[in-house]
Amino acid sequence: MIEHWLKTRINFKTLLSLVLISSCFGIGWSQENLSKTPNFIIIFADDLGYGDLGTYGHPTIKTPNLDQMAAEGQKWTNFYVGASVCTPSRAALLTGRLPVRSGMASDKHRVLFPDSKYGLPSSEITLAEQLKQVGYSTACVGKWHLGHKEEYLPTNNGFDYYFGIPYSNDMDFVGDRTKSKESGYLVTENYNVPLMRNTEIIERPANQNTITKRYAEETITFIKKNKDNPFFIYLAHNLPHIPLFASEDFLGKSKRGIYGDVVEEIDFGIGQIIATLKEEGLDKNTIVIFTSDNGPWLSHEINGGSAGLLKAGKGMTWEGGMREPCIFWSPNNIKPAVVSELGATMDLFTTFSALAGAPVPKDRIMDGHDLSSTLFRNAPSPRKEVFYYRGTQLYAARLGDYKAHYITQGAYGQFGDKEVHDPPILYNLSIDPSENFDIGASHPKIIGEINTIVKEHQSKLTKGKDQLADRE
Amino acid sequence: MIEHWLKTRINFKTLLSLVLISSCFGIGWSQENLSKTPNFIIIFADDLGYGDLGTYGHPTIKTPNLDQMAAEGQKWTNFYVGASVCTPSRAALLTGRLPVRSGMASDKHRVLFPDSKYGLPSSEITLAEQLKQVGYSTACVGKWHLGHKEEYLPTNNGFDYYFGIPYSNDMDFVGDRTKSKESGYLVTENYNVPLMRNTEIIERPANQNTITKRYAEETITFIKKNKDNPFFIYLAHNLPHIPLFASEDFLGKSKRGIYGDVVEEIDFGIGQIIATLKEEGLDKNTIVIFTSDNGPWLSHEINGGSAGLLKAGKGMTWEGGMREPCIFWSPNNIKPAVVSELGATMDLFTTFSALAGAPVPKDRIMDGHDLSSTLFRNAPSPRKEVFYYRGTQLYAARLGDYKAHYITQGAYGQFGDKEVHDPPILYNLSIDPSENFDIGASHPKIIGEINTIVKEHQSKLTKGKDQLADRE
Repeated sequence: MIEHWLKTRINFKTLLSLVLISSCFGIGWSQENLSKTPNFIIIFADDLGYGDLGTYGHPTIKTPNLDQMAAEGQKWTNFYVGASVCTPSRAALLTGRLPVRSGMASDKHRVLFPDSKYGLPSSEITLAEQLKQVGYSTACVGKWHLGHKEEYLPTNNGFDYYFGIPYSNDMDFVGDRTKSKESGYLVTENYNVPLMRNTEIIERPANQNTITKRYAEETITFIKKNKDNPFFIYLAHNLPHIPLFASEDFLGKSKRGIYGDVVEEIDFGIGQIIATLKEEGLDKNTIVIFTSDNGPWLSHEINGGSAGLLKAGKGMTWEGGMREPCIFWSPNNIKPAVVSELGATMDLFTTFSALAGAPVPKDRIMDGHDLSSTLFRNAPSPRKEVFYYRGTQLYAARLGDYKAHYITQGAYGQFGDKEVHDPPILYNLSIDPSENFDIGASHPKIIGEINTIVKEHQSKLTKGKDQLADRE
Repeated sequence: MIEHWLKTRINFKTLLSLVLISSCFGIGWSQENLSKTPNFIIIFADDLGYGDLGTYGHPTIKTPNLDQMAAEGQKWTNFYVGASVCTPSRAALLTGRLPVRSGMASDKHRVLFPDSKYGLPSSEITLAEQLKQVGYSTACVGKWHLGHKEEYLPTNNGFDYYFGIPYSNDMDFVGDRTKSKESGYLVTENYNVPLMRNTEIIERPANQNTITKRYAEETITFIKKNKDNPFFIYLAHNLPHIPLFASEDFLGKSKRGIYGDVVEEIDFGIGQIIATLKEEGLDKNTIVIFTSDNGPWLSHEINGGSAGLLKAGKGMTWEGGMREPCIFWSPNNIKPAVVSELGATMDLFTTFSALAGAPVPKDRIMDGHDLSSTLFRNAPSPRKEVFYYRGTQLYAARLGDYKAHYITQGAYGQFGDKEVHDPPILYNLSIDPSENFDIGASHPKIIGEINTIVKEHQSKLTKGKDQLADRE
């Protein structure tokens, strides 16, 4: 019909207007455009802060691909991780549950180490396991950090394929820390970390200079191989966790120093992934989400990232430790917006399960919400609360705009000692995102409301057996 | 020809691709698309910080129109004002010269007051005067603050038309400061400031509840009246300077409190202005620039803005006081980019004069650079240096990536006492935008280079007669 109309007398301006109007008003943005099994790609950076992307205000880190995704999709500004350090944050994302429930949070060691005995218990259900049961092909590319013994690896947790370093890139240190510091952490051989394909070590030490590039390439290969199936890819970059490495094409290229080089290489790879989705005609049936596992590692000074206007960083329950950049991208389906509603990595389990038709487990407490109505219809988020844990202890809780800190504590020698607040200190995060102005004294009712949700939350909480405490 | 081509057999997809390709690759972005007398609109906010727009990372202030301008134009991330407070900053913008040269900076009073005797000397040439001599219609809408006696008003400084409050909106205080504070500064009658049209007071006290809306309306009226002439509009909002006011449609609407309400109302008006330019077919021959006069007034706590990841705010020579959001928008002419090159409000005089063919004065030292090659061809900025003054004293200087502080000093009871640094403290702002890590000790050569440009700058400096010191 359109062809017929075009063959008749037509005004070029009319057509152009039509194209522009339909793109401006987003006619047709809808969840209905997605198939019953859309593809999911979660891109997870490591220690990247709230302020480290162009679209979140960084002055000299150039992230044109992420900026573009943000302009074409939803940029979330109140999106949280499940913990302020690596292992528990990743457990939260993949299980949709607070890590205190699975035992993946500990008061003895904050994360898993190469000599740790255990990992994610097999009783936990990962998002990959969820999606496999409804026919998805699944891959984990990158950092795992939920147990490196075979039984704990991705291939035993619902992933068909694994390629990556199974824990943090600063582990298995075999060099001289003084020299390493002098050289700007640039000698990859100092870190004898393994690179694995499925359950095999294929390279040791992993050459970290090219690791970011290879992770993007592995992702692209998996997309191409699985373009005819629904797929789920969990691309968990090892960087910009310290030590920092970039390939030759990026080293020394950013104005922000090596930290910027690394982020720009991650951004470049994301551009390649997006281009592949478009080339393969998969972009309109795929949801790509970008976020990070926790805030910036500030004690590493210029080699650490920035939390922007948020307070503190990695390891802490201030906003800078647990609020992250988050971009949802799915052309035709997710309409461009800046979303200041609450969301969390734990919601991805619930949301993607719902979209793919995989029933959410009913035999356990889940901590996720289905964000579909916010993603596709710009409705208010079903998430109204955030619980901020350090290890197995609840330090703070957010309800709507308000956050009560029961305990505050610095990390890595910064931001002071442990302090218990009774009554809690209170911030209105929508008005005071930098947590500067305690309004607890004038808001006893709100503190009461937060106390109530905390009490209810804790009354139902069973702490899982600590999986991080025991080491060989 | 296009019509003819369309009447022949045509494939809708081909045409669509053509439209999309040309918009993606920006075929035709060029200064050549502008006429010899393009229109200029400078929108100047008051005390808005680096971190207060969506596109610069604010989580809860919604600025969809400015975000859109940033996505369609150039977002500058190293753009400076000429002073960290109001009067000298405005003098710098309008004269293209450091305010110490014109006498519009003082060590006695930082700004002009309602009982100040003087204002911008008639010997100074404003951007409006420049553009008038080549046939522009000119309007100043909003805050002037360069002298409120008739001889100093906009209409005696090159503007055909003036509508606005001639100084800060917190002046002429007639209320009870305690009560005013309690009420959240919301009683406009407390501030007996005049609203002027040309040289007449038309309302006193100015009703500030509707002032932002009325400034946008006046701007739109002027655009429509002058659509057949080249025009220059200087829209200098009185807000979000404290006290904060918003019209009924915006009051209580933002998540960020009244500060957010105000910024969102300014953003809304900008959307109306952009829409008017499009309706009148002027958008492709107009350059719109948005920036602010200085950093956020932090001592006002939640009623002050945010400098994002930059240190300190209004009144100080730390980055938060003098680096501002800056968006250049001109569809067809300025290609979308994030620009981390150096720029300054003083460059607008030089750039717009060059574009309009108005010769830059040769009888005086100018402090601006012509940014055309950066705006239209993405070339490196000709600006390599920034001089940070407090009153008539040079406190710091930036050369390329590096900034040396010779003196640091807080303001409004924050950020400490005056401190002289000899040798200066040094930051690499591209790597360390938050000015956390002094690298002076290891970079004597760079300090030497900055000392050299400072010495050269000072050797040519003649301080103008202080216009701010004398009051009735």
